[in-house]
Amino acid sequence: MIRDLTDDQARAALPLKWDVEPGVIPAWVAEMDFRLAEPIEEALVRAIRRGAVGYPPHHDGVGTAFAGFADRHWAWEMPAEASVPAGGVMSGIRLALEALCPPGSVVVPQPCYPPFRDVVAVTGRGLVTVDLDPDAEAATMDLDAIESAFAAGARTFLLSNPHNPLGRVWTREELEALAGVAARHGVRVVSDEIHAPLTLPGATFTPYLTVDETAVAVTSPSKTFNMPGVHGAQLVILDPELRARAAALPIPAQNSWSSLGVVAGEVAWRDCDAWLAALVDRLADNRALLADLLAAHLPKARMRPLEATYLAWLDLRAYGVADPAAAALRHGLRPAPGSDYQPGLDGHLRLNLATNATRLSEGVRRLAAALSSADA
Amino acid sequence: MIRDLTDDQARAALPLKWDVEPGVIPAWVAEMDFRLAEPIEEALVRAIRRGAVGYPPHHDGVGTAFAGFADRHWAWEMPAEASVPAGGVMSGIRLALEALCPPGSVVVPQPCYPPFRDVVAVTGRGLVTVDLDPDAEAATMDLDAIESAFAAGARTFLLSNPHNPLGRVWTREELEALAGVAARHGVRVVSDEIHAPLTLPGATFTPYLTVDETAVAVTSPSKTFNMPGVHGAQLVILDPELRARAAALPIPAQNSWSSLGVVAGEVAWRDCDAWLAALVDRLADNRALLADLLAAHLPKARMRPLEATYLAWLDLRAYGVADPAAAALRHGLRPAPGSDYQPGLDGHLRLNLATNATRLSEGVRRLAAALSSADA
Ligand SMILES: Cc1ncc(COP(=O)(O)O)c(C=O)c1O
Ligand SMILES: Cc1ncc(COP(=O)(O)O)c(C=O)c1O
Repeated sequence: MIRDLTDDQARAALPLKWDVEPGVIPAWVAEMDFRLAEPIEEALVRAIRRGAVGYPPHHDGVGTAFAGFADRHWAWEMPAEASVPAGGVMSGIRLALEALCPPGSVVVPQPCYPPFRDVVAVTGRGLVTVDLDPDAEAATMDLDAIESAFAAGARTFLLSNPHNPLGRVWTREELEALAGVAARHGVRVVSDEIHAPLTLPGATFTPYLTVDETAVAVTSPSKTFNMPGVHGAQLVILDPELRARAAALPIPAQNSWSSLGVVAGEVAWRDCDAWLAALVDRLADNRALLADLLAAHLPKARMRPLEATYLAWLDLRAYGVADPAAAALRHGLRPAPGSDYQPGLDGHLRLNLATNATRLSEGVRRLAAALSSADA
Repeated sequence: MIRDLTDDQARAALPLKWDVEPGVIPAWVAEMDFRLAEPIEEALVRAIRRGAVGYPPHHDGVGTAFAGFADRHWAWEMPAEASVPAGGVMSGIRLALEALCPPGSVVVPQPCYPPFRDVVAVTGRGLVTVDLDPDAEAATMDLDAIESAFAAGARTFLLSNPHNPLGRVWTREELEALAGVAARHGVRVVSDEIHAPLTLPGATFTPYLTVDETAVAVTSPSKTFNMPGVHGAQLVILDPELRARAAALPIPAQNSWSSLGVVAGEVAWRDCDAWLAALVDRLADNRALLADLLAAHLPKARMRPLEATYLAWLDLRAYGVADPAAAALRHGLRPAPGSDYQPGLDGHLRLNLATNATRLSEGVRRLAAALSSADA
């Protein structure tokens, strides 16, 4: 069911990820070396054949399809009309910051997806980062530091739920604690849930809106279904007044969504459960394979429990190499440098494991060679 | 070569435009009742089949294809690297206002495409509108009023070249005069050239950048090739420093373009000249048909010379109906109200003539019935 791309196919399908020197294994940007799910591929081809590339309809089926998905996967009953279309997740977050959040600084825990910092800058808000201590036992949210930032005037919190790059699936208890602190300080939480369907066996995803109805969630099928180039993200807003505010924004504030995004989103949320189950199986296999490979080749690596996503956050400080991603690139593997996610953080990288076993195994061997070599 | 859509096909292809009561002829939003150009349709299907729906490549062929188009159609030799990708034209204009224009108010001549006013509001700039006197002999730019606005502090001018909804193709002399006034006051011109390839026989399009190298042009193949749902607009910037500023913006400021937009844009600018020639022929035929229909059924209507676009701007004040678009809708035709383009302007409407002769003829008959009926 999961159709692997050969190197040649992957280069043609994923020109950004595979824009690497010949022979280099790309394991950086969050795309998977798999073909589209068949129902999505067929629906997009049909849409193009009928010419459905005009302005998107006023009333689309994405909200209904997403409500069905939320119910089936997370036992979350939410209204179809809670979804408001957005172009991409980041432009949805921008819109939320600009139009739906109180003035004041924005709190972003680090490491973080780098555009989280950028979007705060673009909206002209102050940024308060709360860094995870890389030596901490578990990757948790530092609620004391977060509350201090709120006490000092921050009024928005940008959550990645589940977390990229930490791979954490926040528990209901953790999210409730956050919601409590946010409520005490009148803080709006914006919850980016793009990775939610990629929760792996062993963890349970909690939609943040189920602990805090005042929040704005932003999601998209683009990550799970490997189609970031098809713009069809959505804001999910339970509060009717807040939702009306978002829906009333003029076109230029909405970073308009695309009609093909509507087509793909509806099919993804509604008709792709079997494909998604096969994908999660494959990712769980790769997670196990990566653990074995690390044990064999990089025993001093620390891999935090990967509860969701196909992006492993590796602590390689034990090897004494400041920039292990740069060293890896010299040895034919391109991971993402840890310092992209937390400026100044040495010895970490993010490794994309959504590929076949051959590339993953060879990639870890190259990483091990890089870290043990003289020119590391 | 131009493949007409039947009503049923049009309803499936263009769900926004055709979201009208059964039997109503939609002539409002700027979409054409024609199928995609074959080269674009085939390229999009191939892209989906190979899974090219990931992040767009760093180096795409849109700039080269557009440079070829500009040279063939307008004898404009411009560098391929002048194009910077943007999601849509309006998000490109937003980016230009936010990152590339001096502080100060923005001058927008009216009537105008309504999102022109919205985008100014979204960026928090002041808006100075300069209204065309509907009784003016010709639709020209009021340079005295524009210069007064510059003298009073406005530092950005938003140009629609050619103009929607007036249908004007500004002459080189008019554009040079504007450029002169802008230069005297340190004003940056943002030129929206989305309608340029739709210049009809009799007029000659002048790219604004050929009279003012400091301007920012924004264009997209989406209007000409009937694919606004495929996001692939572009900024065109000749000044290297300004271009570097645009290219360096973080993802959330760029309203990211889509990989399918890149695919479609490259083919549109490069391989669709024959289709475009057939389209312009058809639109010129429809322009002539509309003139005949108005002479026969609405002799007191004033149609300004339609030099470009498929959107006719009709002055129907002689019929004494304040809102002729609303009257038309009650008689089975949905044009766009003139007051959308110039708030407070009575007696005008914009009629979309990119349809077949049957719908256009019947539409004008309904409009005539509406304006002569008691309930108008
Ligand atoms: C947490 C997170 N949010 C957002 C995105 C990107 O979303 P979009 O391309 O829709 O802006 C990513 C991409 O990897 C991500 O990891
Ligand atoms: C003058 C003008 N600019 C921009 C647009 C829309 O462009 P986009 O959908 O790429 O934002 C239109 C659509 O009709 C238009 O007439």
